[in-house]
Amino acid sequence: MTIASSSLKEHSLLGLKDLSAAEISSILDRAAYWESRTEKKTPILKDCFVANMFFENSTRTRFSFEMAEKRLGAEVLNFAAAASSVEKGESIYDTVRTLESMGIDAGVIRLKPNGLLADLAQRVSVPLINAGDGNNEHPTQALLDLYTMRKHFGELKGLKVSIIGDIKHSRVARSNLWALQKFGAEVKFCAPPSMQAPELAVHAPYVPMEEALCADVVMMLRVQLERHAEGLLKSADQYRLEYGLTEERAALLPPHVIIMHPAPVNRNVEIDDLVVEHTQSRIFQQMSNGVPVRMAVMERALK
Amino acid sequence: MTIASSSLKEHSLLGLKDLSAAEISSILDRAAYWESRTEKKTPILKDCFVANMFFENSTRTRFSFEMAEKRLGAEVLNFAAAASSVEKGESIYDTVRTLESMGIDAGVIRLKPNGLLADLAQRVSVPLINAGDGNNEHPTQALLDLYTMRKHFGELKGLKVSIIGDIKHSRVARSNLWALQKFGAEVKFCAPPSMQAPELAVHAPYVPMEEALCADVVMMLRVQLERHAEGLLKSADQYRLEYGLTEERAALLPPHVIIMHPAPVNRNVEIDDLVVEHTQSRIFQQMSNGVPVRMAVMERALK
Amino acid sequence: MTIASSSLKEHSLLGLKDLSAAEISSILDRAAYWESRTEKKTPILKDCFVANMFFENSTRTRFSFEMAEKRLGAEVLNFAAAASSVEKGESIYDTVRTLESMGIDAGVIRLKPNGLLADLAQRVSVPLINAGDGNNEHPTQALLDLYTMRKHFGELKGLKVSIIGDIKHSRVARSNLWALQKFGAEVKFCAPPSMQAPELAVHAPYVPMEEALCADVVMMLRVQLERHAEGLLKSADQYRLEYGLTEERAALLPPHVIIMHPAPVNRNVEIDDLVVEHTQSRIFQQMSNGVPVRMAVMERALK
Repeated sequence: MTIASSSLKEHSLLGLKDLSAAEISSILDRAAYWESRTEKKTPILKDCFVANMFFENSTRTRFSFEMAEKRLGAEVLNFAAAASSVEKGESIYDTVRTLESMGIDAGVIRLKPNGLLADLAQRVSVPLINAGDGNNEHPTQALLDLYTMRKHFGELKGLKVSIIGDIKHSRVARSNLWALQKFGAEVKFCAPPSMQAPELAVHAPYVPMEEALCADVVMMLRVQLERHAEGLLKSADQYRLEYGLTEERAALLPPHVIIMHPAPVNRNVEIDDLVVEHTQSRIFQQMSNGVPVRMAVMERALK
Repeated sequence: MTIASSSLKEHSLLGLKDLSAAEISSILDRAAYWESRTEKKTPILKDCFVANMFFENSTRTRFSFEMAEKRLGAEVLNFAAAASSVEKGESIYDTVRTLESMGIDAGVIRLKPNGLLADLAQRVSVPLINAGDGNNEHPTQALLDLYTMRKHFGELKGLKVSIIGDIKHSRVARSNLWALQKFGAEVKFCAPPSMQAPELAVHAPYVPMEEALCADVVMMLRVQLERHAEGLLKSADQYRLEYGLTEERAALLPPHVIIMHPAPVNRNVEIDDLVVEHTQSRIFQQMSNGVPVRMAVMERALK
Repeated sequence: MTIASSSLKEHSLLGLKDLSAAEISSILDRAAYWESRTEKKTPILKDCFVANMFFENSTRTRFSFEMAEKRLGAEVLNFAAAASSVEKGESIYDTVRTLESMGIDAGVIRLKPNGLLADLAQRVSVPLINAGDGNNEHPTQALLDLYTMRKHFGELKGLKVSIIGDIKHSRVARSNLWALQKFGAEVKFCAPPSMQAPELAVHAPYVPMEEALCADVVMMLRVQLERHAEGLLKSADQYRLEYGLTEERAALLPPHVIIMHPAPVNRNVEIDDLVVEHTQSRIFQQMSNGVPVRMAVMERALK
């Protein structure tokens, strides 16, 4: 590995699997610093140009990055696939190389194909921040999840975290799994058979719903209705009854337990309407925490 | 009502129906101040983050708000429904709460469902500016209309204003009606039966086209072709002949009369091609006036 | 011609056909100045509002303009047709006039209809920059092409430039033709019969592929697959064999020759995958050069 790519590796954020607990803690600490600042803008990146390259749409994630980037004073340019020349068959690589050629200092990227991101990061010379790639990783989501847990419980060690839902297609589940285990937290999965990822079973057990609810953190995943072929998926009602965090189930959670969800939620499918803003829910706090976490990530990429 | 929501009420702009004439005048006066400034930028909102949340597309209105916000130095983030997770079934409420959680200071919002906005405003804690909701209100459009009339005629009291076209689906007609009557202007409507809103008849009479043209202000509305089921709507040609501001009709208007339209126009349907830039037309001036009016509205929301 | 429109003409950039060699050189010289600056931002346009009005999508070109505008400190507002009221039948003219009314200082415009741009430029009073109109001109692309050639060869006079591909629909070919001939470069075209523009044959000869490859600059054009009716177009494989810059053909090019392409490329159609980043390829350098060239164009428009 050359010095350049080694240095790049320190600035890019492709996933949490290859990051040490110390590196992750350092990002979380810096996020806490940014959360503590009362000024809206601290223009430490005022001469940096950041491209948010969303080859897969996500308003929430793009918006959160844009807030973080602008609070640090960066110049932000948005690229969304739907309105772009991707329709003309242009490859993702060509687009990223193009924006790099135009002088961006860092790229935030969301894309569908699994495995492409690592290849991209080898072939371009600007730091890349993974905003979700296929079902591989979504590191900034997991970082804000860890930040939210650490803020509530003080530390991550020994924490019991249950992740419930479509594990198979979830990059959020994977990034949380890799990161939480580095800190000695205990992860359990709960999913209907068609939504299980068998290759993850060696890392965390699949448990029944009742056991999954015996945890410190109950993290519900969005049912990716669009990713399941007709017939394979249970009806939404059936799913809710078997795997949803219903009002009844939420009422049984001990008071120290927190409810999380990466959002957007399917109300009354994986989580009941009234549970979204339950006193034990941290769903909107997760979104708030996303901004200082992404400020820390962008600062790390560009300073 | 708590102090917080009372204070919020002063900063939000949900409609003109509940605003007093004094409040409206105060916004118009401040718009006049902003129009008189020669500098392009006055960064009084430089630490404010504004989200333009368009759940219904409108290039013109979004662009006008963005100009206003940037002239005041605000950081602007755009959200458009088409390219967003709304497709995933995410509710408008969840999106607004999400963006609020991320730290926006105010939200400009356009949405289709009637009645949702008042509910939203109760449930979030940042000021919301209505950029058009269903067929309920479009307050900044009516404010710029009043501004344009006041600028031309000096005062609104006693002014005869005819609003011609699809009253039934028009939030512009409603906002103008509520506001103009507070100042003692006389509003008349003219519309084919299928485009009349019977519930408004107690507030302003429906008159024939010839009578509608006897006014100081002739305000044409866009025919919302997309909102009418096939068969109910007359052909465009037939509509033009009966309710359009044709060249012939425009030629008969006394010279003091001004022609208005909220745009975008359907040329040769509700207004003839050559009437759009007629010497008595104020259509493009309305658009110009929209920027200082929205500067006044954003300043009110955020100072 | 009035003084106002004469002055406007100096600031707009509608095409290269009507520009003198001296005017073009002056833009290229200024681009060299901007390329030499090490600061990312030089806010000479900090009080200017620029609208990028893309009635035809182009991520790459819009992004390049936005980089250039923001490096000069301008406020940038983006308008894209897909998400706009163009769907409502609003004319391009009305939109441009609207944005002008709202106070933009310059407009960058891409549109499909041939011949409309000149008319627009007569009817609005802000400078317009052509970012591609129909198959007429794409002046900033040709300027960056000339800049790339001049940088490599030192001067343009006497340079042999072959433009290969869909000449008929190419505004890039036309802008390059008009500009290169002003500097005494020799342009040749190469295209299958269905992609030839007969009216250009009086300006530059159509030659067979072997002769086209005997040049200093081999400029490949994107096959506009979407613009050809089924049946008229050869298969992509057949096109590649007859008119593509294959690895075999690239290997035969003398070392002084450079390979260009306006991008996005169709890999393995008009250019082989491995040729895109060939040592003699200047494709990504063209994109890099686009930013300082567009900075020079925007500076010229607004200072």
